[in-house]
Amino acid sequence: MQIFTKAELEQISNNIFLAMGTSAEDAALATDVLVNADVRGIDSHGVSRLVGYVALWEAGRINTKAKISVVKEHKSTFTIDGDSGLGLIVAPKAMEIAIERAQEYGSGWGAIKNSNHFGIAGYHAMMALPYDMIGMAMTNATPFIPPTHSKQAMLGTNPIAYAFPTAKNKPLVIDLATASVARGKIEIARREEKEIPLGWMVDKNGVPSRNIDELKDGGMLTPLGSLEELSSHKGYALGSLVDVMTGVLSGANYGKWVPPFVSFLPMLPNLPGQGLGHFVGAMEVEGFRDKEEFKAEMDHWIDSFKAAERMDPNQEVYVPGEKEYRIEKTRLKDGIPLNDKVVADLDGLKQKFGV
Amino acid sequence: MQIFTKAELEQISNNIFLAMGTSAEDAALATDVLVNADVRGIDSHGVSRLVGYVALWEAGRINTKAKISVVKEHKSTFTIDGDSGLGLIVAPKAMEIAIERAQEYGSGWGAIKNSNHFGIAGYHAMMALPYDMIGMAMTNATPFIPPTHSKQAMLGTNPIAYAFPTAKNKPLVIDLATASVARGKIEIARREEKEIPLGWMVDKNGVPSRNIDELKDGGMLTPLGSLEELSSHKGYALGSLVDVMTGVLSGANYGKWVPPFVSFLPMLPNLPGQGLGHFVGAMEVEGFRDKEEFKAEMDHWIDSFKAAERMDPNQEVYVPGEKEYRIEKTRLKDGIPLNDKVVADLDGLKQKFGV
Repeated sequence: MQIFTKAELEQISNNIFLAMGTSAEDAALATDVLVNADVRGIDSHGVSRLVGYVALWEAGRINTKAKISVVKEHKSTFTIDGDSGLGLIVAPKAMEIAIERAQEYGSGWGAIKNSNHFGIAGYHAMMALPYDMIGMAMTNATPFIPPTHSKQAMLGTNPIAYAFPTAKNKPLVIDLATASVARGKIEIARREEKEIPLGWMVDKNGVPSRNIDELKDGGMLTPLGSLEELSSHKGYALGSLVDVMTGVLSGANYGKWVPPFVSFLPMLPNLPGQGLGHFVGAMEVEGFRDKEEFKAEMDHWIDSFKAAERMDPNQEVYVPGEKEYRIEKTRLKDGIPLNDKVVADLDGLKQKFGV
Repeated sequence: MQIFTKAELEQISNNIFLAMGTSAEDAALATDVLVNADVRGIDSHGVSRLVGYVALWEAGRINTKAKISVVKEHKSTFTIDGDSGLGLIVAPKAMEIAIERAQEYGSGWGAIKNSNHFGIAGYHAMMALPYDMIGMAMTNATPFIPPTHSKQAMLGTNPIAYAFPTAKNKPLVIDLATASVARGKIEIARREEKEIPLGWMVDKNGVPSRNIDELKDGGMLTPLGSLEELSSHKGYALGSLVDVMTGVLSGANYGKWVPPFVSFLPMLPNLPGQGLGHFVGAMEVEGFRDKEEFKAEMDHWIDSFKAAERMDPNQEVYVPGEKEYRIEKTRLKDGIPLNDKVVADLDGLKQKFGV
């Protein structure tokens, strides 16, 4: 493990994006999205992804000089062609348009096709906060989850994020994958040689399994709900919602056809759309309620949930997004730890590009 | 158990709403929402609720002559004061406004305060379908779910519904409570003397329990995810999302203050808002993508999920909402079964009002 400052990670990330041929502006944008994940403790979506992005770029699947365009629209709604660009760059640009539309029409909603991995959904949703807007973002992702009763991966971890402005508290940020747990959490259990609970994963036949090795032999993640008897069909429905809003509505791929995020896996034949899909939105608070009143009420909401009776007096009740703020505070002060594998990957990229 | 036709249930329901003093138009609207739930197999949200509505009306908590009004707006967004009306009447009227806004601005979004129980969320979302729009609806509800690490009921079953138009298949309807299972499902297990799995409910201390009797002694439901180790914090976050969108944004009550749906439970003091809250929306497909293309692609999405490899060749893979269509088909043909308790309740109401 090695500790980096935020500025150090930004410099590494920025240099690598520039080396891949992005403009200075796009490199800075992609870097901001990526390093924000590391700062907030979502390590799986931070600079550890760079090696994968480079491989996809080398395989010709990412266009680092992409020009996005609005291909269809009606006042508060629009669809963007991401021109095979990095989602890290395409999604925040789409979100800017959504915010402009919300200023004019009260809300703005963008479906995005022909894009790639967009980092943490929460980043894009949070872009709305300085405008006193509610932000939202979703994306589909490489299929790794079978529907209830199926043994075929049809859905990705398809996250949903919403951000709500506040007055005195930190903004409320809801950002959740519609899988029961992230693959990264299972990998950590493997490293720490801990048993995992039944429900975190299934084997290649769709049967719940505690054997982490199955993940390398056709095993898959589960939808939120985990097991059929605990309502995995609801997580499946939420993943479907995201897949349709991001994939079908925009004209991107969906279901089993969503492009793999690793370059060594081939694309399926007969693709129904282009690239992967996102959906972003912004709603002006003032179009519903006086914004100062709303923000004060959000504080009251947060305070009331923080004050909910505890099961264990020593275990506080968190509100969504609170843990990430705490990690952010610590990491901005003490630095961001990267594990040796990630450090080695980054060193490899620096050497490769001579940066 | 007794079997009724749809028309019979409609007549009973309509007469009872009229007896409570609603206009003919409002009685027909509320009846349509309510009986739709029975027809689609969501028995807990159908005519079985009438006895509870009457009790709330007698307790002065429901205004059957409510006039809704838009209290704030900005083109695609608006907030409605439901005037203490029945959600069954207030929500579809708000949805009509959302559809009008979507025709003009591409999308329309309504927050609703000062309302009551609105029946099945799916009904309101599906109102958008004839307009080739995507519909959505959410509501907060009587608190019955503690947040992760808490033993205090702070969230209701807070459902989320989305409806998507199709060409040849039935529309895709996603309609899920953000609880792991409905209270009704636990009650059915009690009647059938079946063991329930760990994760469906907790006792009054927030500890997972299989003892159904605890529900009458301070026991509560769990958020989707069920157990802490299976990511109950995600269901808690989804329930929070609904609570903020429906309660805080509109100026309704939220969290522990959401009014109880039974008349014998008192309201909490120091209410932060008015009534309970909903949020509805409509998005014109054509504002994103050619609508015929979208509907054909939705069929392709559905067909591909129906064709996903099965775990068991004899157990088909369902798409969200499919089971409800099947029940609808059967019940329209063979009638709608009501259990004896519900029949007795309805007989009591008919006698009470002389209808």
